[in-house]
Amino acid sequence: MVFSMVDQRFEKYVNEHVNEFAQQVIRLASQPSVSARKEGIEECAALVEDMLRETGATTRVLRMDGVAPLVYGEIKSSKSPKTVLFYNHYDVQPEDPLELWESPPFKPEIRDGVLYGRGVSDDKGELVSRLKIVEAYLRTTGELPCNVKFCFEGEEETGSVHLGDYVAKYSDLFKADAVFWEYGTVDSRGTPMVSLGVKGMIYVELVLKSLSQDAHSSYAAILPSAPWRMVRLLNMLKDENEMIRVPGWYDGVTNLAEDELGLLQQQPFEGAEFKKTYGADRFLGGMGDDQAKKALVQRPTGNIAGIWSGYTGPGSKTVLPKEIHAKLDFRLVPEQDPQNLLNRLRKFLDENGFRDVEIQLESMEPAARTPYKHPFAQAAIKAAEKVYGKKPVVELGSPGTGPLYLFTRRYSMPSVDIGVSAVDGGIHAPNENLKLENMRKGMLWIAEALELFCAS
Amino acid sequence: MVFSMVDQRFEKYVNEHVNEFAQQVIRLASQPSVSARKEGIEECAALVEDMLRETGATTRVLRMDGVAPLVYGEIKSSKSPKTVLFYNHYDVQPEDPLELWESPPFKPEIRDGVLYGRGVSDDKGELVSRLKIVEAYLRTTGELPCNVKFCFEGEEETGSVHLGDYVAKYSDLFKADAVFWEYGTVDSRGTPMVSLGVKGMIYVELVLKSLSQDAHSSYAAILPSAPWRMVRLLNMLKDENEMIRVPGWYDGVTNLAEDELGLLQQQPFEGAEFKKTYGADRFLGGMGDDQAKKALVQRPTGNIAGIWSGYTGPGSKTVLPKEIHAKLDFRLVPEQDPQNLLNRLRKFLDENGFRDVEIQLESMEPAARTPYKHPFAQAAIKAAEKVYGKKPVVELGSPGTGPLYLFTRRYSMPSVDIGVSAVDGGIHAPNENLKLENMRKGMLWIAEALELFCAS
Repeated sequence: MVFSMVDQRFEKYVNEHVNEFAQQVIRLASQPSVSARKEGIEECAALVEDMLRETGATTRVLRMDGVAPLVYGEIKSSKSPKTVLFYNHYDVQPEDPLELWESPPFKPEIRDGVLYGRGVSDDKGELVSRLKIVEAYLRTTGELPCNVKFCFEGEEETGSVHLGDYVAKYSDLFKADAVFWEYGTVDSRGTPMVSLGVKGMIYVELVLKSLSQDAHSSYAAILPSAPWRMVRLLNMLKDENEMIRVPGWYDGVTNLAEDELGLLQQQPFEGAEFKKTYGADRFLGGMGDDQAKKALVQRPTGNIAGIWSGYTGPGSKTVLPKEIHAKLDFRLVPEQDPQNLLNRLRKFLDENGFRDVEIQLESMEPAARTPYKHPFAQAAIKAAEKVYGKKPVVELGSPGTGPLYLFTRRYSMPSVDIGVSAVDGGIHAPNENLKLENMRKGMLWIAEALELFCAS
Repeated sequence: MVFSMVDQRFEKYVNEHVNEFAQQVIRLASQPSVSARKEGIEECAALVEDMLRETGATTRVLRMDGVAPLVYGEIKSSKSPKTVLFYNHYDVQPEDPLELWESPPFKPEIRDGVLYGRGVSDDKGELVSRLKIVEAYLRTTGELPCNVKFCFEGEEETGSVHLGDYVAKYSDLFKADAVFWEYGTVDSRGTPMVSLGVKGMIYVELVLKSLSQDAHSSYAAILPSAPWRMVRLLNMLKDENEMIRVPGWYDGVTNLAEDELGLLQQQPFEGAEFKKTYGADRFLGGMGDDQAKKALVQRPTGNIAGIWSGYTGPGSKTVLPKEIHAKLDFRLVPEQDPQNLLNRLRKFLDENGFRDVEIQLESMEPAARTPYKHPFAQAAIKAAEKVYGKKPVVELGSPGTGPLYLFTRRYSMPSVDIGVSAVDGGIHAPNENLKLENMRKGMLWIAEALELFCAS
């Protein structure tokens, strides 16, 4: 057996109390907190604060007008000068379609060792697991391996739109040496995954207006067309090889290193299955599975998420539309700075005859990625090997985006995404679930990683 | 005074009975017949047949399942072997917005010599005028200058979608030597306009599908994008100078002749005013007013009437759309054959990597244009000079499209659009109106043109 950093009393406590932990997940998940409908948010924040206080933490409920409260907590330790931050959220996705649930989404129940209910994985099960890790330490060894902070927000499922304001306003509170991000999974073969970051994003809506009112399409012989101008703009923006033509867009972007490529190769990826799911004949440019995996981590994208103009109903209407809108999202890698690229995009349009085109910024966030050689990443990886008895899958960077950078950039701290969920946990879907055995192992995993990092 | 072909008794009858004619317009316009709502169509068709029979015509009501009836009529004459066809429609546009009408749309009333009501110009006033021309001939000279046929359809305002079926099914009925199309106007200075045709059109919806379901936009790094492919397709379809790149698209298209350009120059066109109406800084390619007038007549167009894909709501949604739709209308000049061009478009897409893109044909119709030197056009032009005492504006071809070709192509016959309305008659709008003095003059104009053509 691999040597464990975790005290055996801690491990025993966790092993023996899983069912009680599950009752606490049920307690929290019984309180609806659908941020999309602003439903139960205050009640849930109060409950989270109660549970945090019961754990032994000093708590604060941070507030801003018209915004879901942020529940903060901290517990000191004399064992290490290090501080780790746990980020989770207490809000959940809407529960519909209700008819597909086998048990009521907000009356969680356990069937065959699996807990079912909205939020039991994402993210209330994760949140409770972290509270219970703290509880286990305090009730067994009497002290945490290092100082711990908690940041539990209530708007994650609606885009964390005010998290940045909270972090800026209470900047000192959130300072730490590392952050355990919200969530972590094991795959269908029980292999844990360590995720080390996300891409950044610029989301804009381009608005191109050529006329003050729609015209009859017979006037297309003499009047300018907003849609055709947009076609030219977009065609200019990206070449046939999917490269964005804005000068400097790729400045500084590096290739993955040899060792990173090695990790990628170990990462399972069912390319054929993936293509089948989306009915795609091939990946972009005919790339193979290895190239696809690389692209998901390190390829900046430029996506048309939406476009509309003129008549979009059935049949025909002969109209020359006055305007056209296009929503674009650009995913960014760590080397790219969103504000710099936004400026370059503006300049590119200005210099190519599209000065009149409005760029409405919807959101902008840099990438966040922790190098896998960082001691915190290594702690998470080694802890996974210890607890699961096998090498974890290391996701160098998720192709998605999130507010991780708010912490990692501001405090120059590393992050890992590890936790107690499973890829088949039905998050955002009916019959969301949490396997109690995954909860048990995931808690040991986090504790082991915490110990390893504190000792490093 | 210019020598008139029209018998003085005819002219006297028209001059003295204008108010009675107006009562007949009121009678017909009091019967709602909104084809968009299929409201009152049968009742209106029956009334039109009554009025046609009262005039002295042999009538037939042609029917097809689920289609508005077509009212046909004819009156023979021994004076000339020639036959002219009057095309009109008895359906009208919806009346909304109701609150902007000064008197109820279907209770027509005369105020200060102007008749107000839905359809009093378009096209019930025109239809009644033609019946009353016939009545005036039969009650004064006892016989028409030539054989006359009437084709009154009930679906013009919804696109005349079954007129072609009627014409094909009752092909012999509609054969004639010339057709007076539905409508004609005088401008704000009382100058009559002779319109000699319309452009043709191909209206298609392009459907491009790249995935079987929408994907998260993070997968834009590896999955193909329908919107980007459509951008490339459209960019390939048309160049920066607004020329359609499909090989052969412009085969046979001629420039207007010197004398036609001369006519165009006489045609008033307030370019600055037009640009102001649409908030356009300039015409396409910076063309001047003369070029714009020419383009409206003889420039084939390719218009994006609508385009849509992905997320089109407020804010942001990170989606890689599975498909994109684009509605395109191509206006055609007489030298262009729609079916031939549609085939070329298909081939062009096939040969350039877009074999999978579906072309859904919405409608297709060739142009119809009568040369201004044709005796029928000349009759309309000279008749205008006689009745109005000034040269008419000759519109060589309208930039719009219509089902005129169904008659002109099938029977190789010329057409003119002349009538009793005015450009400020509010057609398709609230307070649609007909000036009784325009009705009187327009009737003399048509009669004079009829006489001149029969004598030619």
